[in-house]
Amino acid sequence: MRSSRNGPGNGSDVLVVGGGIIGLVTAWRATQRGLDVVLVDPEPGGGAAQVAAGMLAAVTELHYGEQTLLALNVESARRYPAFAAELGEASGLDTGYRACGTLAVALDSDDRAHLRELHALQVRCGLESEWLSGRDCRRLEPMLAPGARGGLRVDGDHQIDPRRLAKALVAACTRAGVRFTHGWAERLSVVRERAAGVVLADGTALAADQVVLAAGSLSGRLAGVPAELLPPVRPVKGQVLRLSVPSAYAPFLSRTVRALVRGSDVYLVPRENGELVVGATSEELGWDTTVTAGGVYQLLRDAHELVPGITELPLTETRAGLRPASPDNAPLLGPTALPGLLLATGHYRNGVLLTPVTGDVMAHVLATGELPDEARPFTPRRFTSAPRELTTA
Amino acid sequence: MRSSRNGPGNGSDVLVVGGGIIGLVTAWRATQRGLDVVLVDPEPGGGAAQVAAGMLAAVTELHYGEQTLLALNVESARRYPAFAAELGEASGLDTGYRACGTLAVALDSDDRAHLRELHALQVRCGLESEWLSGRDCRRLEPMLAPGARGGLRVDGDHQIDPRRLAKALVAACTRAGVRFTHGWAERLSVVRERAAGVVLADGTALAADQVVLAAGSLSGRLAGVPAELLPPVRPVKGQVLRLSVPSAYAPFLSRTVRALVRGSDVYLVPRENGELVVGATSEELGWDTTVTAGGVYQLLRDAHELVPGITELPLTETRAGLRPASPDNAPLLGPTALPGLLLATGHYRNGVLLTPVTGDVMAHVLATGELPDEARPFTPRRFTSAPRELTTA
Repeated sequence: MRSSRNGPGNGSDVLVVGGGIIGLVTAWRATQRGLDVVLVDPEPGGGAAQVAAGMLAAVTELHYGEQTLLALNVESARRYPAFAAELGEASGLDTGYRACGTLAVALDSDDRAHLRELHALQVRCGLESEWLSGRDCRRLEPMLAPGARGGLRVDGDHQIDPRRLAKALVAACTRAGVRFTHGWAERLSVVRERAAGVVLADGTALAADQVVLAAGSLSGRLAGVPAELLPPVRPVKGQVLRLSVPSAYAPFLSRTVRALVRGSDVYLVPRENGELVVGATSEELGWDTTVTAGGVYQLLRDAHELVPGITELPLTETRAGLRPASPDNAPLLGPTALPGLLLATGHYRNGVLLTPVTGDVMAHVLATGELPDEARPFTPRRFTSAPRELTTA
Repeated sequence: MRSSRNGPGNGSDVLVVGGGIIGLVTAWRATQRGLDVVLVDPEPGGGAAQVAAGMLAAVTELHYGEQTLLALNVESARRYPAFAAELGEASGLDTGYRACGTLAVALDSDDRAHLRELHALQVRCGLESEWLSGRDCRRLEPMLAPGARGGLRVDGDHQIDPRRLAKALVAACTRAGVRFTHGWAERLSVVRERAAGVVLADGTALAADQVVLAAGSLSGRLAGVPAELLPPVRPVKGQVLRLSVPSAYAPFLSRTVRALVRGSDVYLVPRENGELVVGATSEELGWDTTVTAGGVYQLLRDAHELVPGITELPLTETRAGLRPASPDNAPLLGPTALPGLLLATGHYRNGVLLTPVTGDVMAHVLATGELPDEARPFTPRRFTSAPRELTTA
C-alpha cells in the first residue's frame, strides 16, 4: 500500500509538520501502516520534550471537569509499557521508562483538604489511589519533610525520560523509513480547497496527500491555514530544574514526589541515572523562554519545603519550555474542516503521557480516514465556530 | 637591567606560578621594572576572578580586629582609579571599573544594630560612611524592599568587572613582554637551599632567579616547597549568580546594594552592561566547586528579600569559585625564609580589591629585595613557627 511517490520524488502520502514527540510518534506509527511519510522540522527530536519532566500522571493530575480527558490519559498510560518496549526494540535505545509510582503529599491542612477531595474524585472515577498518613508517607520516602500531613500513593503513575523518548522516536522513524526534511514549514499549500503540502522558509515546496500539523505551541502560526481552522493553542511557559543525586545520597527518592505548595505544583522526578528533575512553573508569557531568578527561586523554595535535603544536591541545569495549551486543556486530534489537513497538537501538560495513544490514533485516521472512538471527543472541530459543524458532529 | 637570559633561553629573572589576577599583576608590574618574567599557568586569566563579583569594598567589608588589613585595603582602593586607567591604556581594553558607591542595608532590627556598630567602627577608623534612614535608602535605590530599616551609604566603595580585569591584565602582560608558559607547575626546584625554578607536569624544567607562588587556593600544594614554608591557605567556596537586567528595567540598581540576611552576606553588583551579579555563599568544603540547589536557593531567597524585583530578571549563570583564605584573612606578600621563593597569595575576599597594591608591592620587592612599608605586616614569615624568625622580624 506504500505510495508510488516513495523514492526520489518530492511528494508523500503524509507530511508531518513538527518533529517533537507528537510529530515523531505520528510519523513512526503512520509509516508502520505502510504510508510514505515526510517529517519537516529544523531539529527533529527537539521541542518541549527537551524540558519536560516526563511524569505519566494520569491519576495524580486528574482535575474536576476533565473526566473526558482522563479516559484518554488512562488509556495512554495503559498502553505505555508495551509502547516503551516496542519503541526500545525498534530504535535499539533505552527510553528510560520507569514504573516507579507517585506520591502526592500535603504539607499543611489546606493541602490535606485538597488532596482528600482529589482522592474522593479518583475513587469515584474508579482509579487506584491510596490515602496515607504523614508517617506512612515518610516511611515510603524518608527524605520527605517531617511536616508532611498525609498523601496519596498512586502506584500506577510512572515516568519516562522525555529526552530519551525523543531520541528513540527519531531513531525508530529513521529505521522505519520516515524521510526527514530539516527546515521550517512556513506556509500550508491549499489546492482546490484541499491541503496539498507545505512551502518551507527556503522556498522548497513539499507535496503530500495529507498534512499533519503537530508543531506544539507553534501550531497556530502556520501561514496559509484558513483563520477559522488555526488551532487555538497558546504557549504556557514551564521552568524546570535538573539536579543530580551523587551516589553517596542514592536512592534519594524512589518514586515521583509531588505537592501543591501555596497554589503551585512542584514535583521531583528521580531518574535511575541519578538525575532529579524539579518542575515546573506555569506562566502565561507568550513565547518567552527565559529562565528567571523568580522561577528558579519558586521551584527551589517549594522543592525545599517538600524535600529539605535537596539543598545538598548539585544543580546541573535550568531551562524553560512551552506547553501547547488548548482552551479545554485537551489535545486536538484528527481531521479539520479542510480536507487533507489534520491536527495533532494542544497536548498541554500531557504530551509525554499521550504519546502512545496519539501515535495510534493519528496513524489510524491517516490510514483509514476514521477517527477511533477513544479520540472522538478530541476532534479539532469542537472549537470551530460553524454551528452546522457542531450539530452534525 | 633586563637579564641577559631574555630571549631564546629557558631561564628568567622571575617565574610567576599562577595566572590569576594576582599572578598577572605581579608579572606585569615586575616587567615594567625591567625584569624578565615568565608566568606559568594552564589557562592565564582564569581562577577565582572568573567567579568574583568585583566589589572594591574596603569600607563596607571592615571587620573588627582587621584594622591592619584595612590600611592595605584602603591604600589599594586609593590606587584603583589610576591603576584602572593605566591598565586600560596598556591593554587597550575596558576593565569595567565603575565608581558607583555602595549601600549596605539593614532589613530588621538585629541587622540595624549590627550596621550601627559597623558605622561606629568606620567612623573611629576615619572612614567615610553615612547613616541613612530606611526611607532615604529607598529614595536612593527605589527597588529596595519596603522593609529596609536603615543603611550605610559608602560612596567610596566601587566595583570592577573581574573578568575584564583578568583579560586586560593578560593583554597588558603580553604587550609588556611577559612570557606565558601554558602548563601546570608541579614542583619547586631547590638548588643549594635556594629556589631555582619549577618543574612542570610534562617534565619541563624552568629556571629563574626568583619564584613567586601566586596560585590562589592551590598555593599550598606545590611540591618541593619545604613543609614549614607552604602557605597556610585553604579554599573557601563561593557560589555566585549572574542575572541580567533587560533595558526595560534599567537602571535597576545604580550602586552595589548589600545586606546581612540571617547571618549571610548577600550583595547585588550592577554592571553598566546590564549584568547583575548576586553573591555569595561562603562554604568550607575543600576543593568542591559544585553549584548546589541549596547555594542558589539561599542567594535567591536573600537577594529577593533585599530587592524583591529580582524575580523578573533572567538568571543567566550559576557558578562557584574558591577564595584563598589565610588564618588571619590577610594576604601573604613577599619573601619567605627560603631565598628566591616569594608569595603573593591568601587574598581571601579581597583579591580584586588588593590587585593594584599587590602588583606594586611584589614588583618592588622583586626589583629591590625590600618589602615596602605598607606590606610589612603581610610578610609570610608571620605564620612560620621558628621563634628566631619571629623575634628578628
